Amino acid sequence: MNHDVIKARRLDHIRPFHVMEILSEAYRLQAQGQNIIHLEVGEPDFPTPEVITQAGIEALKAHQTRYTQALGIPPLRERIAEYYPPAYRPGIERIAVTTGSSSALQLVFACLLNPGDEVLLADPGYPCNQNFIRCYNGIPKTIPTDASAHYQLNAQSIRQHWTEKTRAVLLGTPANPTGSIIPDEEMRRIAATVRQLGGVLIVDEIYHGLVYEAKIQSALHAGDDIFIINSFSKYYGMTGRRLGWMVTPEAYQADIEKLAQNLFISPNTPAQYAALQAFSQEAQAEFEYRRTILRQRRDFLVSALGDLGFAVPCIPGGAFYVYADSSRLSDQSDELALKLLHEAMVGVAPGKDFGHYRHQAHIRFSYANSMANLQEAMERIATWLRVSPTN
Amino acid sequence: MNHDVIKARRLDHIRPFHVMEILSEAYRLQAQGQNIIHLEVGEPDFPTPEVITQAGIEALKAHQTRYTQALGIPPLRERIAEYYPPAYRPGIERIAVTTGSSSALQLVFACLLNPGDEVLLADPGYPCNQNFIRCYNGIPKTIPTDASAHYQLNAQSIRQHWTEKTRAVLLGTPANPTGSIIPDEEMRRIAATVRQLGGVLIVDEIYHGLVYEAKIQSALHAGDDIFIINSFSKYYGMTGRRLGWMVTPEAYQADIEKLAQNLFISPNTPAQYAALQAFSQEAQAEFEYRRTILRQRRDFLVSALGDLGFAVPCIPGGAFYVYADSSRLSDQSDELALKLLHEAMVGVAPGKDFGHYRHQAHIRFSYANSMANLQEAMERIATWLRVSPTN
Repeated sequence: MNHDVIKARRLDHIRPFHVMEILSEAYRLQAQGQNIIHLEVGEPDFPTPEVITQAGIEALKAHQTRYTQALGIPPLRERIAEYYPPAYRPGIERIAVTTGSSSALQLVFACLLNPGDEVLLADPGYPCNQNFIRCYNGIPKTIPTDASAHYQLNAQSIRQHWTEKTRAVLLGTPANPTGSIIPDEEMRRIAATVRQLGGVLIVDEIYHGLVYEAKIQSALHAGDDIFIINSFSKYYGMTGRRLGWMVTPEAYQADIEKLAQNLFISPNTPAQYAALQAFSQEAQAEFEYRRTILRQRRDFLVSALGDLGFAVPCIPGGAFYVYADSSRLSDQSDELALKLLHEAMVGVAPGKDFGHYRHQAHIRFSYANSMANLQEAMERIATWLRVSPTN
Repeated sequence: MNHDVIKARRLDHIRPFHVMEILSEAYRLQAQGQNIIHLEVGEPDFPTPEVITQAGIEALKAHQTRYTQALGIPPLRERIAEYYPPAYRPGIERIAVTTGSSSALQLVFACLLNPGDEVLLADPGYPCNQNFIRCYNGIPKTIPTDASAHYQLNAQSIRQHWTEKTRAVLLGTPANPTGSIIPDEEMRRIAATVRQLGGVLIVDEIYHGLVYEAKIQSALHAGDDIFIINSFSKYYGMTGRRLGWMVTPEAYQADIEKLAQNLFISPNTPAQYAALQAFSQEAQAEFEYRRTILRQRRDFLVSALGDLGFAVPCIPGGAFYVYADSSRLSDQSDELALKLLHEAMVGVAPGKDFGHYRHQAHIRFSYANSMANLQEAMERIATWLRVSPTN
């Protein structure tokens, strides 16, 4: 008889999101009548475009609610393939529609990793990524990156940290929490390096399209041996529909399909029919308009944070986050985040959600909120900084 | 440099579903103008009740499409809790809404299993279950069961197969592919045995409610230390919405929540709002009506299969499958399934999708199809048996 609690060791390494604590504390304050501005959330404030919503309604009316093929309905896979330029357009057999990018990453790591295999990632980064790897008994090896490296891995740092146990590299571009992007030329160098080292490159492009100056191509241009992860959540404004996609290298197609059959059966059906409209001219025009709005917000927020004493050494090129250095204001960004919530009524995400490297010196501000709210939030913080005895 | 293809060893054990080959061959024949009767699929033929569809449409119109709490919206968790009788009703904090029962099982095994840990399962069984376990580097230990054990594990067989490495037991009741159920008394013996052995009991109840004679309670009645898995797919007719739930033992609540945050973010939002109506009187009346229809189909199918020479030694008590012994007709049920498709135009699922134990002696017939189609299918098989030279 064994009276120990049965529990996987991976749980010791998987933490709840600190931002969820901030969020539930924010809701508690709101319930008490406080007005909180939410800059902690990673969800677009724009609603799903009407044309997509309407297509979802039509799908329900037409009873398009049964299981689909494990990799998604063929017309959606076709539209997704056509999203890529002819020069490196994948065949539709390489497209897998997934339950958000979350399930795409699960499929990739279930497909690649044996116990003890290592995957390289940038620190700071999206916190779930490490945990997908841990679930399949891989080891996430995070590499500290800072403004001097644009918060990204590059061919050199990948080569430097590669070991016999390294199997793959996961990059995000534009990245969460820094908004930093990897230029095409560097992506090609990275792809060549990983290929030479005998590993697999996985590129998370869920913020692709939300880029403000530099034009970047999909990493697919750098090779058809790269796993490309994308999502209808961010650029396409469909978070709660839980729909994403991946482009699979040919060598892994059959494996990804059988894993998808087994692990997920199929993605949400009405969401798939709705997503057909995400590539319509009407929706695309709306997304482009939203991009210009996001750019204005970013420009305002970066400048306002600078005035308040935060440092933003790299202007974020994409996504909707500013990862600001808060070390001039506090050496404990998690405490600072709680103070900003309780005393300035502004919710922000503390650095510790995104890694270990100088996390207490950083705060993530999301600009998935209206310009009026961003302005009000900056004024609240300014006022708080003037009156707060500890600052 | 390593030029081996990087691939997880678990893939060697994970097979695509043979029924998918049958299905795609059936579609090919249909495209050629052949009329195929589909008795191979595990999906209710009834549409989602109108009241649920309408609630989904209302949710879309109201823009209820953002991320929700990782464990689901509180009103749905409440309704689910209320589904259980007061005598063993769980608190809503123990309810997790999931992306189908598939993601519930992933959460459970991610929470429990270290590499090499064993989980006991019945053979025959739902094929994905073994693969969920393999994904988290556990070892599925299947135990051959036959009609004499009602195709189920019991307290005795569990004790007999328990080893030092066994951590959990996964049971389905009613079960796929056999429709067999575990009586309440036996479930209590099983729960007591697993508890005494220091393991965890997981009970898949996705066909709960689809029971035709015996009244069975949720396994929750046998202890609050049991993981209960359920789904809106089968009884509730919402397959393509990908929505399920689980009841978590208190000791694992916090772990399941952080895993759900990390692995899935949240379940599909409009589906959650739609599912609120699954417990309405209108929907429940519809489900009860469907149950009587399914029972008529089962009675017809069991009797007709017997007349054709199949053996059905245990009358299936629930779900919508008959797992028929085909050994009097063929010693190769996979070949028989292909012949039935090509020569009798009836799609069925061969036993090899469900396990290794006497799988070549079994065929699964689904009665999630109209009585008219079931009758026509049985006539086609009867005609084929008369004219086929090999029979």
